[in-house]
Amino acid sequence: MKKDGIQWEIPREASRSRGLRPLVEAPFLRLPRPNLDDNTADLDRLERALAQRGITPLRFDPRTLGEMAGKVREGDFEVCPVVGREGDGWALIDVVPGASPGDVLGFALDCGTSRLAFYLVDLASGKRLAERSVPNPQIPFGEDILSRIVKARRRDGLEALQRCLINACNETTAALLSEQGRSPSDVYAFTVAGNTTMSHFFLGLDPANLCREPYIPVANHFPFYRAADLGLAIHPRALVYVFPNVGAYFGGDLIAGIVACGLHHREDLSMLVDVGTNAEVVLGNRDWLIACAGAAGPALEGGVVERGMMAAPGAIDWIRIDPGSLEPTYRVIGGGKPVGICGSGLIDLVAEMFMAGILTIQGKINTQLRSPRIVELPDGPAYIVAFADETADGMDLAVSEVDIGILLKSKAAMYTILNVITRKVGVSLQDVKHIFIAGTFGNHIDPAMAIRIGMLPDLPLDTYQGVGNTAGEGAAMLLLDRELLEVVEKLRTRITYIELNVNMELMNEFRGATFLPHTDPRLFPSVKIPERALGRGALREEWPRGGP
Amino acid sequence: MKKDGIQWEIPREASRSRGLRPLVEAPFLRLPRPNLDDNTADLDRLERALAQRGITPLRFDPRTLGEMAGKVREGDFEVCPVVGREGDGWALIDVVPGASPGDVLGFALDCGTSRLAFYLVDLASGKRLAERSVPNPQIPFGEDILSRIVKARRRDGLEALQRCLINACNETTAALLSEQGRSPSDVYAFTVAGNTTMSHFFLGLDPANLCREPYIPVANHFPFYRAADLGLAIHPRALVYVFPNVGAYFGGDLIAGIVACGLHHREDLSMLVDVGTNAEVVLGNRDWLIACAGAAGPALEGGVVERGMMAAPGAIDWIRIDPGSLEPTYRVIGGGKPVGICGSGLIDLVAEMFMAGILTIQGKINTQLRSPRIVELPDGPAYIVAFADETADGMDLAVSEVDIGILLKSKAAMYTILNVITRKVGVSLQDVKHIFIAGTFGNHIDPAMAIRIGMLPDLPLDTYQGVGNTAGEGAAMLLLDRELLEVVEKLRTRITYIELNVNMELMNEFRGATFLPHTDPRLFPSVKIPERALGRGALREEWPRGGP
Repeated sequence: MKKDGIQWEIPREASRSRGLRPLVEAPFLRLPRPNLDDNTADLDRLERALAQRGITPLRFDPRTLGEMAGKVREGDFEVCPVVGREGDGWALIDVVPGASPGDVLGFALDCGTSRLAFYLVDLASGKRLAERSVPNPQIPFGEDILSRIVKARRRDGLEALQRCLINACNETTAALLSEQGRSPSDVYAFTVAGNTTMSHFFLGLDPANLCREPYIPVANHFPFYRAADLGLAIHPRALVYVFPNVGAYFGGDLIAGIVACGLHHREDLSMLVDVGTNAEVVLGNRDWLIACAGAAGPALEGGVVERGMMAAPGAIDWIRIDPGSLEPTYRVIGGGKPVGICGSGLIDLVAEMFMAGILTIQGKINTQLRSPRIVELPDGPAYIVAFADETADGMDLAVSEVDIGILLKSKAAMYTILNVITRKVGVSLQDVKHIFIAGTFGNHIDPAMAIRIGMLPDLPLDTYQGVGNTAGEGAAMLLLDRELLEVVEKLRTRITYIELNVNMELMNEFRGATFLPHTDPRLFPSVKIPERALGRGALREEWPRGGP
Repeated sequence: MKKDGIQWEIPREASRSRGLRPLVEAPFLRLPRPNLDDNTADLDRLERALAQRGITPLRFDPRTLGEMAGKVREGDFEVCPVVGREGDGWALIDVVPGASPGDVLGFALDCGTSRLAFYLVDLASGKRLAERSVPNPQIPFGEDILSRIVKARRRDGLEALQRCLINACNETTAALLSEQGRSPSDVYAFTVAGNTTMSHFFLGLDPANLCREPYIPVANHFPFYRAADLGLAIHPRALVYVFPNVGAYFGGDLIAGIVACGLHHREDLSMLVDVGTNAEVVLGNRDWLIACAGAAGPALEGGVVERGMMAAPGAIDWIRIDPGSLEPTYRVIGGGKPVGICGSGLIDLVAEMFMAGILTIQGKINTQLRSPRIVELPDGPAYIVAFADETADGMDLAVSEVDIGILLKSKAAMYTILNVITRKVGVSLQDVKHIFIAGTFGNHIDPAMAIRIGMLPDLPLDTYQGVGNTAGEGAAMLLLDRELLEVVEKLRTRITYIELNVNMELMNEFRGATFLPHTDPRLFPSVKIPERALGRGALREEWPRGGP
């Protein structure tokens, strides 16, 4: 996982100070052999020994009683029971006869709309053995999640969407295990953090009601599944834990993110911002947490904008523009000629165009300026970042006023959401001491640039931290710290979730935020607006579209 | 169930005073419809409404989340969730859309070595709809349980023994339901009380270690099964509860019996005696319970003895002998000519032969007496109860000295066990205020006769109560009173179980008890020993055989 951009700095005191308390363990037990004075049953004997180690109450899968007792006998009462924390009790997953359980492994999965990220963890040592990210195999069903929900309504559609996810899991986990010389049957735990829709797809639950008012999930929290229930090709009785969601727009990925950033045990007021098609925001400290999510439009992830793309090789992710010559300098992920521009590149571009006076505070391109890069295209004025001979596809890489308008709506939505949530609890943005920015976006974005365009509030730069894949991080942390199960359960019920109600008041606020940096420059004292940026009329305001 | 003989008088204040608290119920819920201000998930909405009725925590079968939420929608949020108490929580068994759940039924099974007794109960009204008893289909594998355990060791033997039990369950429950015009899918609960070996067979658990020292069950308590786990043809997710056992020789049938007699909440010192091949005895009150089991031999159930039979049509179950003429008067179950003699008949016979001076205190037949009924057969002296022309098979119905010797060993074992258990806790038999005698035997036995032969202690006759099928009774009670789950769990761990150690001391005690009524007549002050009963030498003492 790339952790460039802003420094990775997630507190993990919770699990570190207490040592490992993995979700699944397999302690070696030398059970007293039965005799006439101690003739308790085989499984009760095992249960008793585990209870003496605090592993109680123990729950047996009724279909395996005979098999488990057989293994106790096979090991001649020297066994390693494989036990996993399951809610307020323990599940007996298996019994390994003899003094060593072999490997005790777990997988964490960040089940994202675009990508699936897998982490293979050794639960005995706490070591991460391998990780891999693959494209979400549902993409052929629809790039955005709304079209996948529509596909799920077709006959066998939901099954197909689930099956391709599970197949991808089985292929990737098998590859990682094989590379590490490990066996699938030694994987006893699987944790999954995804947004609400992805969690529904993963579990084969109908997402139809997620995308129509009043946006109702099938379930907000899920029982522990066993691998065989879902067709996961690991130990058939491996525990599968899917992070709960708070609502249709607030998924387990964000709960895992809160856990990863330790928001729930910080004294300072902190904020977690997950930027995507929807902006998901959590604000709070160890005493309270409030969350809000709203459509921000896909612009920040590099979607919609004509030459926009994901932060991937070939994408421009950093740009500076010389205010005199109006010539750009840029960086291409992976080097070589650029293919497109990703979210952070777009933010840099708009911020630099604004600072260079190419863009007005209304987001219009100042066509009065003399530069071969400022051109009039069929759909309006544009700025050419790279000429045809400098790009990978031999076509001009231009960003139009229309593209910029889309970005401005996204950034306005983001700023408005941050404002709404702080106002809801009667604090000011200045009271927020840490803002964690999650996602690939968070690793690439330059907060100084985001402040210049008025997307992020004008706070000291060290307030901001990019924290990468917090969903995957949280899911992996839970594998090694079962006490987080309880934390998550409390979080789920503790978080006050505000449904963003797009009304007149909000639209007024949003309108002001579509300007560069804002209609009220007092909100951005650090941004020095260039003289020539004060220009033509504003864009048409319309809140950007999101998805569940 | 026949309740002749001694009056049926089981206290049921527990469930009566509290009203019905059935194991499974299906309350009608009108859930608030979701809206933007109350947009919790479908299943969380159901869970919340159940929690408001105290039904919490709710456990979902992970494989049915989608189906359950679908039914909530199908009922347009007006539903009857079918919930069953499962340990310290509740299982969501099903959701019935609409305002009525239909029937909510349960079966209780007394899973005996010889017979299976089924009770069909309406869990909503508490009414017993039907009951039926069928022979245990395992009998062709072996009349006694030990030979079945041996059969289970063969390839697929255990599966075959389990399968025939389950098949018998499916046939009998289907017949009862069909006669009552009810549907198998409306049966949501199934409770089973059996001895430890039968519970193992029912669940497909290997009983091999039950019959060899140190006599270890696979498990002493069992998780809740679902009907589909066992192939029971009722609702596939119906809860199946198998009463726990305390050890190889102390099964769930006896725990159910304790519950049925209310031994655990009586102030007075009481005793439950279950008479079969093994005599199982529980002594105690609401503060403590001690249990003991020991082989008593099959004589008391009508086995072994040549003309012995179960208490069934054709069996002589009551006999009186005129001390002058030495002529008998008897009663045949169901009327007509006799086929054999059952346990209670045998006890009457021996008691009457003793009182008439036909039997000596050593259990020998006084061949000096002049009577056409006292004869010398190839295997020794005998008493002819019915001549060939009076019997159903046209053969003399004779009981020999050998037969009587077998019965005397059984009765001596029984008396010794009762003595051992009272001595263990430092009380005397005179302190015991109630003695409940379970089983068919208990319904037929005349305690006055049992005292005369020295099988039961010489206590006031109203101390004794025949209580019939307490195992089935307890299993049926649990269907209607889920609080008994906790009672049973406490009982299981509270009962002190004494393994009967057949040593020299015990053998001395046993030897004295093989006499009529005992070598120490002071123990039986109410028994007037006739002069002519003081006769020849004693029988060879050897503790009778039992089975696990």
